[in-house]
Amino acid sequence: MTFRARHLLGIEPLKPDEIRTVLDLSEHYVDLNRSPEKHADVLRGMTQINMFFEASTRTQASFEIAGKRLGADVMNMAMQASSIKKGETLIDTALTLNAMHPDLLVVRQPNSGAVDLLAQKVNCAVLNAGDGRHEHPTQALLDALTIRRAKGRLQRLTVAICGDIAHSRVARSNILLLGKMENRVRLIGPPTLIPARAADFGVEVYDDMRAGLEGADVVMMLRLQKERMDGGFIPSEREYFHRYGLDAEKLAYAKDDAIVMHPGPMNRGVEIDGTIADDINRSVIQEQVEMGVAVRMAAMDLLAQNLRAARAGDGGIYV
Amino acid sequence: MTFRARHLLGIEPLKPDEIRTVLDLSEHYVDLNRSPEKHADVLRGMTQINMFFEASTRTQASFEIAGKRLGADVMNMAMQASSIKKGETLIDTALTLNAMHPDLLVVRQPNSGAVDLLAQKVNCAVLNAGDGRHEHPTQALLDALTIRRAKGRLQRLTVAICGDIAHSRVARSNILLLGKMENRVRLIGPPTLIPARAADFGVEVYDDMRAGLEGADVVMMLRLQKERMDGGFIPSEREYFHRYGLDAEKLAYAKDDAIVMHPGPMNRGVEIDGTIADDINRSVIQEQVEMGVAVRMAAMDLLAQNLRAARAGDGGIYV
Amino acid sequence: MTFRARHLLGIEPLKPDEIRTVLDLSEHYVDLNRSPEKHADVLRGMTQINMFFEASTRTQASFEIAGKRLGADVMNMAMQASSIKKGETLIDTALTLNAMHPDLLVVRQPNSGAVDLLAQKVNCAVLNAGDGRHEHPTQALLDALTIRRAKGRLQRLTVAICGDIAHSRVARSNILLLGKMENRVRLIGPPTLIPARAADFGVEVYDDMRAGLEGADVVMMLRLQKERMDGGFIPSEREYFHRYGLDAEKLAYAKDDAIVMHPGPMNRGVEIDGTIADDINRSVIQEQVEMGVAVRMAAMDLLAQNLRAARAGDGGIYV
Repeated sequence: MTFRARHLLGIEPLKPDEIRTVLDLSEHYVDLNRSPEKHADVLRGMTQINMFFEASTRTQASFEIAGKRLGADVMNMAMQASSIKKGETLIDTALTLNAMHPDLLVVRQPNSGAVDLLAQKVNCAVLNAGDGRHEHPTQALLDALTIRRAKGRLQRLTVAICGDIAHSRVARSNILLLGKMENRVRLIGPPTLIPARAADFGVEVYDDMRAGLEGADVVMMLRLQKERMDGGFIPSEREYFHRYGLDAEKLAYAKDDAIVMHPGPMNRGVEIDGTIADDINRSVIQEQVEMGVAVRMAAMDLLAQNLRAARAGDGGIYV
Repeated sequence: MTFRARHLLGIEPLKPDEIRTVLDLSEHYVDLNRSPEKHADVLRGMTQINMFFEASTRTQASFEIAGKRLGADVMNMAMQASSIKKGETLIDTALTLNAMHPDLLVVRQPNSGAVDLLAQKVNCAVLNAGDGRHEHPTQALLDALTIRRAKGRLQRLTVAICGDIAHSRVARSNILLLGKMENRVRLIGPPTLIPARAADFGVEVYDDMRAGLEGADVVMMLRLQKERMDGGFIPSEREYFHRYGLDAEKLAYAKDDAIVMHPGPMNRGVEIDGTIADDINRSVIQEQVEMGVAVRMAAMDLLAQNLRAARAGDGGIYV
Repeated sequence: MTFRARHLLGIEPLKPDEIRTVLDLSEHYVDLNRSPEKHADVLRGMTQINMFFEASTRTQASFEIAGKRLGADVMNMAMQASSIKKGETLIDTALTLNAMHPDLLVVRQPNSGAVDLLAQKVNCAVLNAGDGRHEHPTQALLDALTIRRAKGRLQRLTVAICGDIAHSRVARSNILLLGKMENRVRLIGPPTLIPARAADFGVEVYDDMRAGLEGADVVMMLRLQKERMDGGFIPSEREYFHRYGLDAEKLAYAKDDAIVMHPGPMNRGVEIDGTIADDINRSVIQEQVEMGVAVRMAAMDLLAQNLRAARAGDGGIYV
């Protein structure tokens, strides 16, 4: 097996072979999730703790379902209502949970890099479920799986990522993954929402949707963080949709068989037209959600295997 | 088996035979829940998602316990703290969850009819746990089971439903069920809290508790929604209790062996006297809660059977 | 077996032999929790409900993990967002849950004595997870296990409990347990935070940390409830740390091999210096958390055994 990581903190440290290993195993879990009995025992006797410092319906639900279907004991920590309020530090909270012998710790944190720090303090596998503007690796992996299934390959594709790139960990993880797999990535958005050093990532930058979508195989829309609107970054929802919202007219510039993606939750009529989102010939948005559960099952399965092996071999690292 | 429904959205679409099938199977689960090992594997490998858009301790707990005892992977979605806040529509949220391949979706929604709409969009079984003023079918079924066990039958009984009928989905589902099973239903309450076209349901309407309770076999009290008081509908708690609250004096007008019911949570001293509520010779309020778990186990078991059969037969409907 | 209790409401009713029985069985669960498959089936088919009327990350998490590892169906009730808001009484809520046939009810309540009252109303085993200023028995048991493992015995030790004793159920349960096991207990803190009749418990009282720590085997720090500061009880965090905070200089008065304990969550720099808390040669704070899960598994295992025996023997008491 080529997946040797102890944690899944980001796409950055992964090698192409490791990415392929996760995606290949995910296919197995796609099948399991479509079967009558969606159950495996690979995490039986293991404890998964979901620590979400930001609320997130879909990501937390996806990890919770993934863990339960794999037979883990899953616990959600409502970190908003927790000891953090009582002045405890993030690290003390993590050490406390660590002392309860979890095997998998799934963490979402508003601070970039906080999950990496936390991973250094615990002796279980840590999965980053989104940290600030840094990384959201399982989102990039589920997007990759969705693309690979729709296009038959995950290389030599032209992928346009559109919208608020600067604040998006989804965009960042996707740019890293798609680059590693030798795809051509274009970023499209208002200059205020494009990171200053975007060119360093080997991407092309467009301000104009039509030019950017020209010949694209994949159109990946991002959620517009409404709370950032009217703050100088961007004018109004109406104006934003006019210039950067995906509608049939703009989509026509992409390839005829281009697929449309969105990480959700969607603002219909803001970054994407509802008709496009619901067009089952173009939109793979529901499939992204489905792939999300499968990818998380695969990632947790692989990390658990590595954890067991490390504990059996040299207890020093983990125990 | 005579229960062929795909969803449990309300009492209205159910035939008497289907109601009897649910109640008969519920008896089996009453026994299981009283046994040393309260576990069955009928939902093993299945995923149950509870989507409660209104907080409800007892109903959500009842569904959660029911699912866990049947071996399902159960997930609660705290919909208040969820993506709905981020502007996502109810249907998009439902489609997102649907893509995670749940088998049973239990939904409580403040809007009448919202659960029916949602059921059309997903390919799993949907259970309505209360939608606006529309229906609350498992409540009516658990009330029916409680009555049948106490009275030995579920027909030719005189059932008085008392209180805020107009705003009550509990009353509406009970009126439908008791009518289908050929019972005599009386509604008692202030005219402002009785629905305008009550007579269309084949019920008798009373403004006076003593007259309405005369000869009743079953006295079903409703919770007074305090937030509706002092708003013109009804005068004050004290005045309400005086006229419509159930106490020993008023209960004496019912049959000597009449049972007293309440869906909970109770306002003691408002719609019901605490002494009556606690009188184990008359009150079956605790048994209603117990029957609730059993009825939900039976309903989920039956829906899961239908789901499996449909998926095995023609995948087109469900998958 | 010498543990015959029906509930675990406090340390007060326990005999030394019962305490030893819990601790001995806990050792078994310490081993299980450190093993590759942390699972036992002793609570299979049983339902555990956690009713926390006060938020508590670590205690609720500890009970939840304990129950899940023992195979119970575990349900958390978010009592803040529950029917209590709708005016239902604590007892009605408890009776409602009781009717759902739970086997283990874990309760945290802000009112001293509320858990005892509740235990009289239900026919399952009740575990007190902290009630007001009264008792927190599993905390005292986990502290006892930690001490016994570090010191090799749980008797003839000098234990200094430091800080806000008056408001602390942790202190109260520890004083009771350590007294029963024939240890010498000292209380150290500002006179305003020492209970008036402390001497009745057979303890020594100190106002000065250095005098109180002299020759101690165990230094047990308490969390300072910040909300009680600046209210006349105590001057300021800075002043408090100067006089009562544990630092290296003060700790030097205790025995060379004295251990440092804290129930968490810690206020670093208020009641304890961060360096001391992190010193793996002195601090057993992480081990306390680890022992917490094991002790709760042992307690629930024992109570479940008694429950099964009582139900099999004479249903009258429990069913």
